[in-house]
Amino acid sequence: MQPSFDDLKSRLAEIHDLRRAQEILFWDQTVMMPPGGGAVRGAQVTTLDRIAHEKFISDEIGTLLEQLAGYEQELDYDSDDASLIRTTRRDWEKAHRVPADLAAEMTGAAADAHDVWAKARAENDYALFLPHLERAVELKRRYVECFDGYDEPYDVLLDDFEPGMKTAEVRQVFDDLKAELVPLIADIGSIEGDDAFMDGPWPIDAQGDYSLKIIRRFGFDESFARLDLTVHPFAASSGTQDIRLTTRYKEDDITSIFTAMHECGHGLYEHGVSPSLERTPLCHGVSSALHESQSRMWENIVGRSMSFWNHFYPSFQAAFPEAVGDVDQDRFYRAINRVKPSFIRVDADEATYNLHIILRFELEQEIMAGTIDLKELPAIWNARFEEYLGIPVPNDTLGVLQDVHWSGGGFGYFPTYSLGNIISVQIWEKVLSEIPDLPEQFEQGEFGQLHDWLRDRLYTLGRKFTPQETLQRVVGGPIDAAPYVRYLKDKLGALAAA
Amino acid sequence: MQPSFDDLKSRLAEIHDLRRAQEILFWDQTVMMPPGGGAVRGAQVTTLDRIAHEKFISDEIGTLLEQLAGYEQELDYDSDDASLIRTTRRDWEKAHRVPADLAAEMTGAAADAHDVWAKARAENDYALFLPHLERAVELKRRYVECFDGYDEPYDVLLDDFEPGMKTAEVRQVFDDLKAELVPLIADIGSIEGDDAFMDGPWPIDAQGDYSLKIIRRFGFDESFARLDLTVHPFAASSGTQDIRLTTRYKEDDITSIFTAMHECGHGLYEHGVSPSLERTPLCHGVSSALHESQSRMWENIVGRSMSFWNHFYPSFQAAFPEAVGDVDQDRFYRAINRVKPSFIRVDADEATYNLHIILRFELEQEIMAGTIDLKELPAIWNARFEEYLGIPVPNDTLGVLQDVHWSGGGFGYFPTYSLGNIISVQIWEKVLSEIPDLPEQFEQGEFGQLHDWLRDRLYTLGRKFTPQETLQRVVGGPIDAAPYVRYLKDKLGALAAA
Repeated sequence: MQPSFDDLKSRLAEIHDLRRAQEILFWDQTVMMPPGGGAVRGAQVTTLDRIAHEKFISDEIGTLLEQLAGYEQELDYDSDDASLIRTTRRDWEKAHRVPADLAAEMTGAAADAHDVWAKARAENDYALFLPHLERAVELKRRYVECFDGYDEPYDVLLDDFEPGMKTAEVRQVFDDLKAELVPLIADIGSIEGDDAFMDGPWPIDAQGDYSLKIIRRFGFDESFARLDLTVHPFAASSGTQDIRLTTRYKEDDITSIFTAMHECGHGLYEHGVSPSLERTPLCHGVSSALHESQSRMWENIVGRSMSFWNHFYPSFQAAFPEAVGDVDQDRFYRAINRVKPSFIRVDADEATYNLHIILRFELEQEIMAGTIDLKELPAIWNARFEEYLGIPVPNDTLGVLQDVHWSGGGFGYFPTYSLGNIISVQIWEKVLSEIPDLPEQFEQGEFGQLHDWLRDRLYTLGRKFTPQETLQRVVGGPIDAAPYVRYLKDKLGALAAA
Repeated sequence: MQPSFDDLKSRLAEIHDLRRAQEILFWDQTVMMPPGGGAVRGAQVTTLDRIAHEKFISDEIGTLLEQLAGYEQELDYDSDDASLIRTTRRDWEKAHRVPADLAAEMTGAAADAHDVWAKARAENDYALFLPHLERAVELKRRYVECFDGYDEPYDVLLDDFEPGMKTAEVRQVFDDLKAELVPLIADIGSIEGDDAFMDGPWPIDAQGDYSLKIIRRFGFDESFARLDLTVHPFAASSGTQDIRLTTRYKEDDITSIFTAMHECGHGLYEHGVSPSLERTPLCHGVSSALHESQSRMWENIVGRSMSFWNHFYPSFQAAFPEAVGDVDQDRFYRAINRVKPSFIRVDADEATYNLHIILRFELEQEIMAGTIDLKELPAIWNARFEEYLGIPVPNDTLGVLQDVHWSGGGFGYFPTYSLGNIISVQIWEKVLSEIPDLPEQFEQGEFGQLHDWLRDRLYTLGRKFTPQETLQRVVGGPIDAAPYVRYLKDKLGALAAA
């Protein structure tokens, strides 16, 4: 069997190289490329994408997977080789179901819709966007029809980002979360505080220096990573030893240090994948939710904790004397953990963020099920938003038009953000049960044991197992909202009580 | 015929996209990539290279070229379409002659030899490098055997960089040049001057600012270009509107401003290729020598001219007060045009540089012809070097081991450097005959008319014609050393006389 396996592996390595090259071309385009290069770069990325796709869905790969079924059975389920065959089979069967014409039509529609969406958002003109949204939904329905064996259509969309996750499971988790969150936020979201100092000034250079100071403590190192500027921060990589983080700075906003921690979480995950998986399709974080659990772990659970600031706050004050020289740590801590309903998802606090997501998750299911007339979507959005968050949406720019996702047909992605929050606390409780003095370590500016634990239990696995199998191995059970609810109640309750 | 042509063009666009992606991956690797990324990046570049090569030498392209022979005949020879078919046929027939095994063996040998060469150079140990050089030469002989129809074996090597150029032609041009240069340098190279101020200090930040100040005047613009730091400066691009220049700075050396002008020349050439050739294999400068003619044009003919410094010197003094605040322009001009034999090619002045090249050109022919025992190469190098440049070579690190080219099998490349010098002056004489007041324009800091002329007559053509056809179209004749000899004699004679 070894020759077939070697053949499969070398074909997958070639495809993986093309995919990683695409990732660097994308990074370059958004971080480095002169503006004139856009048209040609788009063509280059499309070419690499098409070649990688053609090579992957080839009959040769299908035949090799068939030939290797027996070899896979002989192997230990947990071995790299068995995992590679198993995961590739799942990827291949999925990729094979979507006709090239439909895939191309979806890509084209997304490209067409993007600029229209941006214009509609800027001009608060939902009617302009509506035909593109209708087309995106229609294409997505045709996409769903390519598959079978699902419980409900939305399962298919979810599976693209969270393989194996069922809509019913997410619904249950989100219902649990919503039942707790809505009253909690109604209660706590009314607490006011004098956060005016948060407008800065926060000198840009100092933000850059301080961001690096923090993430170096987390494990960021220039020997395998960079931090650069972009408009919409993201993390990318060309391999475990070449991690690209991006961030942005604004003089009146200190969000950048949390952005750096967030992207660092993504980066440490990719960096920690086992070197034995390099140049295979397993060399990535396993799913959107697990990935987001790590960005949120480092940004929120670590970076917004009191023990973290017990260590950093004195040097933070020294770095930003004009903004926080006279602000005591408690006041700063309250400000960065303030719960306050607001309209824009990406600016939302740790708690209300989830209600933004739950709203979208519900609407996406109804849209796919056809129970919503898309013409009525803004009215439905606004009514439900006020129900959950308690504030009336003034216009569609601050409402249904705010996110890019739907313009590109990206239904099914939103829930993974909140699933990431939920999983982050499940993992945190598990680590803490094994290393109870982590908060004391944070107070000393030490994050190495947390990083090591996460790397050895989670990061190293890459895509060897399904997200559910991975979570089972890391925390010993399935996804569960209870720890996250406890965490929010404890943290926010303490803030409300003090 | 149109469907076949469209098919050919779209296949070539795909291959071109892969090649350009490789170029950006290379730029990224040398300019941006964290050091840990090297191994995986090497694999990525190799994969893209292999796929591009396989797609190019495919029988489908061969068949399309056959089908299009009639269509090509119907077209105007100068049209983009005819040029694309004609140039592709030449490239395809060449690429087809080299067996994949030999190509792979050459690539592998080059990779193996590189580090050994670097160690041999560092340790002045020619014996260590010798077996790798022997292997490179043997492989290159096998490479030559893949071709026929040449006058002498070296023609094949030269053709890789200067398509259609014959060794006999280069020999004639170089003999003319050598006959004039050796006595001129013996005469002028003995003139001493007090150039101690050239050791600086030249503050790094000011070098960066001043480099940009100059090349912006030449036409560099951030809308389509970048300037970044690297170890060995080069220019790359992913298209005409995405040009990447690189440079380096040393506190005790102001070479960087000439490096910036040099790389800007390469960049302006790539930027100026006709937009109609974008995403085709014609979207590049036509040959190494023509490319070098443009880097030398902007670096030497423009950047080391008195009229250029008549404009820039006051602001240059203001930018570097510690180094040149007390140095008058005439003294500075003499220093940057000093002719002085030295051992290292890349550090050589404008005049002696050519003798470094002629030495290598002669030795390469003798090596390929087998008339040199490679064991004797250092002794032969040293004797010939002293004959041409008048100074004895102290060791092989400063002699035969200094260049990377031979370790990678890069025989045939060296002559293009001097051919570039020669062609640069042929073109300069032609421009000057049409725009006689260019020096006066330079004195005003105006370079736009020169740039426009070069773009409209040369850059726009890309690879539509052979290098010879291109030169014929630009200057109205073949390559000719006489203008370059006149230029050097005039310029250096004036310096000697004054």
